Amino acid sequence: MDGARESTKEAGDALEARLAELRPRVETALRQWLLPAGAEIVPELAQACEYAVLGGGKRMRPLVVLLVAEACGGKVDDALAAAAALELVHCYSLVHDDLPAMDDDDLRRGRPTCHKVFGDAIAILAGDALLTRAFEVVALGAPSAVVAAAVADLAAAAGVAGMVNGQAGDLLGEGEAPTEERVRWIHLRKTAALFQAAAALGARCAGAGAPRVAAAARYGEAIGLAFQVVDDLLGKSGDPRRTGKPVGKDDARGKLTYPAAVGDTLSRQRAADLTQRAAREAEAFERPDALVQLARGLNQRLA
Amino acid sequence: MDGARESTKEAGDALEARLAELRPRVETALRQWLLPAGAEIVPELAQACEYAVLGGGKRMRPLVVLLVAEACGGKVDDALAAAAALELVHCYSLVHDDLPAMDDDDLRRGRPTCHKVFGDAIAILAGDALLTRAFEVVALGAPSAVVAAAVADLAAAAGVAGMVNGQAGDLLGEGEAPTEERVRWIHLRKTAALFQAAAALGARCAGAGAPRVAAAARYGEAIGLAFQVVDDLLGKSGDPRRTGKPVGKDDARGKLTYPAAVGDTLSRQRAADLTQRAAREAEAFERPDALVQLARGLNQRLA
Repeated sequence: MDGARESTKEAGDALEARLAELRPRVETALRQWLLPAGAEIVPELAQACEYAVLGGGKRMRPLVVLLVAEACGGKVDDALAAAAALELVHCYSLVHDDLPAMDDDDLRRGRPTCHKVFGDAIAILAGDALLTRAFEVVALGAPSAVVAAAVADLAAAAGVAGMVNGQAGDLLGEGEAPTEERVRWIHLRKTAALFQAAAALGARCAGAGAPRVAAAARYGEAIGLAFQVVDDLLGKSGDPRRTGKPVGKDDARGKLTYPAAVGDTLSRQRAADLTQRAAREAEAFERPDALVQLARGLNQRLA
Repeated sequence: MDGARESTKEAGDALEARLAELRPRVETALRQWLLPAGAEIVPELAQACEYAVLGGGKRMRPLVVLLVAEACGGKVDDALAAAAALELVHCYSLVHDDLPAMDDDDLRRGRPTCHKVFGDAIAILAGDALLTRAFEVVALGAPSAVVAAAVADLAAAAGVAGMVNGQAGDLLGEGEAPTEERVRWIHLRKTAALFQAAAALGARCAGAGAPRVAAAARYGEAIGLAFQVVDDLLGKSGDPRRTGKPVGKDDARGKLTYPAAVGDTLSRQRAADLTQRAAREAEAFERPDALVQLARGLNQRLA
């Protein structure tokens, strides 16, 4: 048992070391890809895009892209554009979600939200710009053989059947009686779809075939679901200095969260189960260790 | 002279006949591509997407895609997905532009705007969904050899250096002293960029090489600029039953329009010059007639 625990700790340390190497490469890729070079962009618009993307964040989705690419035996360089695109889509969704007409949030990652700084109109346009740029980045930067499939995956995950759908369900569901089925429906679309696309694009950029891409998508879905359950739990009881969001805001708004649907204990059980599921899916890869540890690490945020 | 006038009229009639054949095909393609089949979409979101796209409109951009594809000797079938994508991008831009935080318009094409019917949140999400879907449609429906270039063209035209940039300049420029240079800067981005992409995608879907794609882009830019100058003139003095927008609204808001910058007479001259320029660019194509007539028809809206 002590040996197993030690090797788990070693694997966790190895993941942390790899993430410490990858994070600066994600930041560099984001700066490189954020705005097209040489374009004469309205300064307020360019600044709003930079503010929305370069203001920190855990960079979970791009890291999933890169770790899955490596787990498939691919090169980080080939997956960096896709990694940047995933973060651009995520950042656009935050800018639009924070708008007064949507979640009406004033703070994000401890700073005023984009529309508080630049106004609603420029925030809407900056979100539109980041979403559009994500597809341009995939088209220009992903290996040419996978561009069409990668654009289709990313759009399906982000769009009317995916993330946008989940956000609409989330908004319209405020105040509804929460059931586990309904919360899961929203989580699958609002959060897991983009993680699923992140993992699939990582596999595609590594040149993986269809079965490996499908396995990656299942892995991404499982960690995406786990991530959102953990997020719901931390939003209810986490330390706001660590979570970056005020405690109890979801409850105050009548949001459909996992703890609201099934309580804290069962929510923790679900997060553990999803982590296990993700770890099992990771076993299909050539080099599964980092993906297994990433899944376990999500659950450990609750510890 | 009479012979020339007659042949011009014949060519114009031939274009009208061709447009009458193409318009229903555009409508069919839009219905086919608007929403992914079999997805469980939040009803309000799906309805808002349908309302925004299927409520009429001149379908200028998709028709440019198809006419350019034909002018290059290509097949309409190969260009229909790109045509639908162009209209989805146009419709998303109208939904977001009409929002209270942007142009705050209550009417569009004689009907209440999307946010008046579905609320601001669903309108923002529907716009996001249409934009995202446009890229998915290109990825799934354009000839596979041209998907990467078509996605890159469309994103460059729609995004932070293109249409979104123009919209930001337009909004922030309200109340500025209008100069022709400034108005042209905005028109190039707000309107001409998407026409340019429409023409380029039409050429690409017809399998055209780089020189023909570049000629198509120049044609698209010229008719896009002509279209916006004409639109500015009609917004100032046109019949609201034909233009679908109230007379004088641009002036009341201090918008940077062509007539405000250089007066009506010179604006009419500019529209005629741009029409000529587009007609000249069209001569580079195998079958230029429809493109020449389309450009002339724009200018005739002022007659």
